Amino acid sequence: MLATCPSRTSLARIANKWTAMIVIALSERRMRFGELRTRVAGISGKVLTDTLRDLERDGIVTRIAFAEMPPRVEYELTALGRTLSEPLGALGLWAEQYFDQVQEARDAFDARPTT
Amino acid sequence: MLATCPSRTSLARIANKWTAMIVIALSERRMRFGELRTRVAGISGKVLTDTLRDLERDGIVTRIAFAEMPPRVEYELTALGRTLSEPLGALGLWAEQYFDQVQEARDAFDARPTT
Repeated sequence: MLATCPSRTSLARIANKWTAMIVIALSERRMRFGELRTRVAGISGKVLTDTLRDLERDGIVTRIAFAEMPPRVEYELTALGRTLSEPLGALGLWAEQYFDQVQEARDAFDARPTT
Repeated sequence: MLATCPSRTSLARIANKWTAMIVIALSERRMRFGELRTRVAGISGKVLTDTLRDLERDGIVTRIAFAEMPPRVEYELTALGRTLSEPLGALGLWAEQYFDQVQEARDAFDARPTT
């Protein structure tokens, strides 16, 4: 699939740290913008807005606007988005599980004599 | 894990389209630079060089230099890198499997009347 497949464009979208963190957070439950921004610490408001819009366009996230005063908007994974939470969750788990090994490898690499 | 965990830095590295495509390609077999560049179509030589170096530093890829004339260098997944090929492979499979649904969602989104 690597060279010519059009699915590369969807891999490019989902293989992205912000997408991964947003989908992992929403796989727990639907959330408001402010909650999501707290959970995905370090994301700017603009990047969160843009990424949510891309994910909505891709059919992965739904935006639910409640007819209330004051207005309330929540973000939820679609059925398609829930199928993505498994592989992205596995990736998040890998990052947690193997973080120490990655860190050790980096320290060893950086300690190598430069030749 | 989202807010404060240091494993976020490793998630940032691996949740990246080039990393995903390189690890998926190398999960088949070890390859030379030129082969990799052909397989991961669209990657520039500089980005491939930089990403391979980052992956080597993270302990995910080994660089094997053969003592031959002319010199030959091949890239191979480490044991740690092989543990990553499963979740990244699952993500690549998702992209292939659900690409049509993503494309349909995009078309529907773009056809919505702007209000």
